[in-house]
Amino acid sequence: MQARIFVTLKNGVLDPQGKAVATALHSLGYEGVGAVRQGKMFEIDIAAADRESARAELGEMCERLLANTVIENYEIEIVD
Amino acid sequence: MQARIFVTLKNGVLDPQGKAVATALHSLGYEGVGAVRQGKMFEIDIAAADRESARAELGEMCERLLANTVIENYEIEIVD
Repeated sequence: MQARIFVTLKNGVLDPQGKAVATALHSLGYEGVGAVRQGKMFEIDIAAADRESARAELGEMCERLLANTVIENYEIEIVD
Repeated sequence: MQARIFVTLKNGVLDPQGKAVATALHSLGYEGVGAVRQGKMFEIDIAAADRESARAELGEMCERLLANTVIENYEIEIVD
């Protein structure tokens, strides 16, 4: 089974990387660009009995390692 | 309009970050975890006439700035 995990900063948390990307895009002439938020993505192959147990285990992994839940949100997508 | 861009390493390109995450997850007891690939995600607010022109412009942004197309793939998702 393959899963994708998206880790993004919570709203209100300063995102200097996103701001730097937005500034760079504007300097390249992309005036239509508004806010940019940068996050992390993990593609994880996981052996699990079923989708629910995979989702539960992946949630634990996010809470313990992949996301800093004080300032980050995470989203789990089971791909197949 | 909001778009999400996923930038991931091409297959065959060494992913030391992904390996480090996999090792850490194993040490936390998650034996069911196989390969882990780490990538970047951008959430971009963009003003565009329609979805097609937004997708074209975002593609340009990826080619010019957001992805190193020698070693990375990118995927564009128009959210709304």
